[in-house]
Amino acid sequence: MSIISRVAVHAFCYELEDFDHNMMTYAKNGRSPVTKFVTVIETDDGLRGEFAPHYMANAMTCAQVSQMAPMLIGRNAEHRSRIFEDLKNAFRHFDRAGVAAIDGALWDLAGKKHNCSVAQLLGGYRDRIPAYASTFPGQSKPGGLDSVQAYADFAQQCRELGYPAFKIHGFWDGKPESEIAVMTAVRDRVGDSMRLMTDPASSLPTFLDAIEVGRACDDLGFFWYEDPYRDASSSAFGQKKLRDFIKTPLLVSEHIRGFEQKADFLLAGGTDIVHIDPELDGGITGTMKIAGFAEALGIDVQIHTAGPMHRHCLSAIVNTYYYEMGLVGPGMFNSMQPPIYTCGYGDQLEDIDSDGCVSIPAGPGLGVTYDWDFITSKQTNLSEISG
Amino acid sequence: MSIISRVAVHAFCYELEDFDHNMMTYAKNGRSPVTKFVTVIETDDGLRGEFAPHYMANAMTCAQVSQMAPMLIGRNAEHRSRIFEDLKNAFRHFDRAGVAAIDGALWDLAGKKHNCSVAQLLGGYRDRIPAYASTFPGQSKPGGLDSVQAYADFAQQCRELGYPAFKIHGFWDGKPESEIAVMTAVRDRVGDSMRLMTDPASSLPTFLDAIEVGRACDDLGFFWYEDPYRDASSSAFGQKKLRDFIKTPLLVSEHIRGFEQKADFLLAGGTDIVHIDPELDGGITGTMKIAGFAEALGIDVQIHTAGPMHRHCLSAIVNTYYYEMGLVGPGMFNSMQPPIYTCGYGDQLEDIDSDGCVSIPAGPGLGVTYDWDFITSKQTNLSEISG
Repeated sequence: MSIISRVAVHAFCYELEDFDHNMMTYAKNGRSPVTKFVTVIETDDGLRGEFAPHYMANAMTCAQVSQMAPMLIGRNAEHRSRIFEDLKNAFRHFDRAGVAAIDGALWDLAGKKHNCSVAQLLGGYRDRIPAYASTFPGQSKPGGLDSVQAYADFAQQCRELGYPAFKIHGFWDGKPESEIAVMTAVRDRVGDSMRLMTDPASSLPTFLDAIEVGRACDDLGFFWYEDPYRDASSSAFGQKKLRDFIKTPLLVSEHIRGFEQKADFLLAGGTDIVHIDPELDGGITGTMKIAGFAEALGIDVQIHTAGPMHRHCLSAIVNTYYYEMGLVGPGMFNSMQPPIYTCGYGDQLEDIDSDGCVSIPAGPGLGVTYDWDFITSKQTNLSEISG
Repeated sequence: MSIISRVAVHAFCYELEDFDHNMMTYAKNGRSPVTKFVTVIETDDGLRGEFAPHYMANAMTCAQVSQMAPMLIGRNAEHRSRIFEDLKNAFRHFDRAGVAAIDGALWDLAGKKHNCSVAQLLGGYRDRIPAYASTFPGQSKPGGLDSVQAYADFAQQCRELGYPAFKIHGFWDGKPESEIAVMTAVRDRVGDSMRLMTDPASSLPTFLDAIEVGRACDDLGFFWYEDPYRDASSSAFGQKKLRDFIKTPLLVSEHIRGFEQKADFLLAGGTDIVHIDPELDGGITGTMKIAGFAEALGIDVQIHTAGPMHRHCLSAIVNTYYYEMGLVGPGMFNSMQPPIYTCGYGDQLEDIDSDGCVSIPAGPGLGVTYDWDFITSKQTNLSEISG
C-alpha cells in the first residue's frame, strides 16, 4: 500500500514575454506576470506524483487544491475513484476545478508505481493523435491576429505545417459580421483542404446573433460551431432552440462543471458533441467518466485545450476527433503552457509531426519532467500538509 | 454618476469557540480558526458599499473576488445588471461564487445612494418572514446533536421558541436507518405542530438508499426532502427517477451553479422546489432572476442559508415559504455568521420573534453595520485595486 503522507502545492510566478496582461494578445516587448502551480503528492513508501495544470492553473484553482489537500493525507494513493467521489461531494457547492490538479498527480504516481504510462493504465491504444490548430483571439493592436488577412495567412501556415483542421477564435467584439468576415476569409484561403471550426467563446450578444453566425457556419461548411452566445453557453434550452435554425453541429458544454451536469446537458439537447476539459472536469477520472457516458449514447467528445493529461486520455478515448493545439498564433508562444518542461514536451505551434499528429508522452506516469530549479526559483507560495 | 474607483477585499481570521475544526460540530473548549472576508466598493463621488458573506466566505471565493475586482474599476456602480453579465461570462468556466460578494456590495451602495433599503429597491412588500430552524449535523462526540434524543429535544425547544418548521441535518453517516431514526424521533416528539424536513446533504451512498429515506419522508409526512444522495444532488436524471418512487417534494439544486443551469435543472425534472443561495448564485441579481424564472413556471423557491442579503431578497420574492435559520443546535453559535455586526443583526437561534419570524434590516442598503475595529484587528490580507 502507498499511503499519502504529504501534499504540496507550489505556486510560481514568471514573466510571459511579448504578451499583453490578458495573456491572450500579442504585445511586442510586453511582459505579463503569470502565476501557475504544481501539485506534488508523496506516499509513505517513497512514491511521488506531480502535475502542473496548463490553462486552468490560476489563483482560484490553486486555492481549491490547498483546501482539498487535507482530505488526502493517510489515504491509499491508488484509491483514485473513491478520492474523486469524496472530493466531488465535499466541494459540491463549487466548480471543483481543483480535483483535476490532484487527480493528475495521483495518476502520475500510479503510473510511476507500476512503471507504465497513464495511457497504458487507461488501456490506451494509440500513441499519436491528430491535432487541430486553435487560434488566439484577434486583437486591434498590431501583432498576432490583428486583421482578417492575418487569420487567412495563419490558416495557410497551419495547413502547410500539416494541421488538418483550424479553429477560429475571432475578434470577440460582439459583432456577427466581424466573426463571419474571418470565417469567410479563412475558407476562401484554404478551400476544402482543412476542416474549419469557429468559437465565439460566448461573445455574441444575442440569440439572433448566434443564429446569424450559425447560418454562416452552414454556408461555409464548418465542422462545428462552438459556444456561440452570452448565455455563457450554459443554457441547454437555448442551444436546443438554436439547433432549430442551423445545421452545423454544436460543440457546447465547456462551461458545465460536474459530470452529472454534463450528462444532463447532453440529454437536454444542449450540445451535439460533449466538450471535456480534463483540467476542469475532474482530471483523468472525470474525463473518462464523461467520455464513457457520451460513448454509450453514440456521441463524440472533444477534449478542451492541451496538456499531457489530455494526451493520455485521448490515447484511450475512441469517440473523439482531434487534439486541440492551442492557443496558437503567428509568432506567439502558447501562453497556456508553463515553461517548465525538461523532457521536450511542448504544446507549441510546431510541436506536431508532418502529418498533423502529436505524440503521447511515453515515460512512466504522465511521462513528463519539470524543471524544479525554475519552479523553485520562481516560487511565490508553498502550501503543504503532511501527516 | 457614481464611478467605481476602488475595490478592496479584507480577509480576516478569528477563533471560533467550542467548535471542532470543521465548524460544524460542537467541541467544548475547542478553538477553530475561521477566515472570512468583506468586500468594499467605493466610488469617485464618495459612496461606499460593503458586504460580508456568511456561509460561502472562504479562501476559494475570496480568490475569485480578487480576480474579478479589476473588471469593476471605472464602471458605473449602478449598472449592476451589466456588471453581473460581464462577470458571469468572464468567469464562465468557474462556479462564480465571487459574483455574489461583489453584487451584494453594489446593492448596498445603491441603497445608500438612494437612501433606501435593498428590499425597497427590489419592491419588497414585507418586513418580516417566517423562519425554519435548520440544524447542525449530528456528531458522535458529546455535545450538540449527539443522539437521536438530542434531536427530539432540540426540535421541541425550537417549537417552544416559535419556529413553525424544523429541518434535520442528520448524522450523515451514510446509513438510511440512522437518518430515519432521527426523523421518526422528531416527528414523534413534535407531532403535527411543526413542519419537518430532512437534508442528508448528498450523504446517502446509493440511489436505493435515497428511495428508502424518501419513503420514510412520505410515511412521516415530511414537507420536503433535500439533497438525498451521492450524485452530489446534481443529476436531474437521477432526481427525476427518484420521484417515480416517492411522493414528498424534492428540494434539490443547491449545488447547481449558474442561473441558466438552474433553469435547465428544473426543466429536466431535477427538483420540485428551486434552491437558491444568494451567496453562491450571483447575489441579489442572480437570486431574483432565478426566483422570477421559477415563478413564471408556477414553482416555489427556497433561499439557502441565512444572511442580510437573503432577507432582502425574501422581502420581494412571493413564491417562497421560509427563511432558513441556520445552522442552529443546542448551545451552539451559528458558525456561519461572522461575529462582526454592530447593529444587532444576528442569525442565531433566538433571533426570531415569538411568532417565528425574522425581520428585514430597515436601514439604507443592506441595513447592517460591521465592526471595522474587529475586522481590521483580525485582518490577514488586504487585496485592493483602485484607478
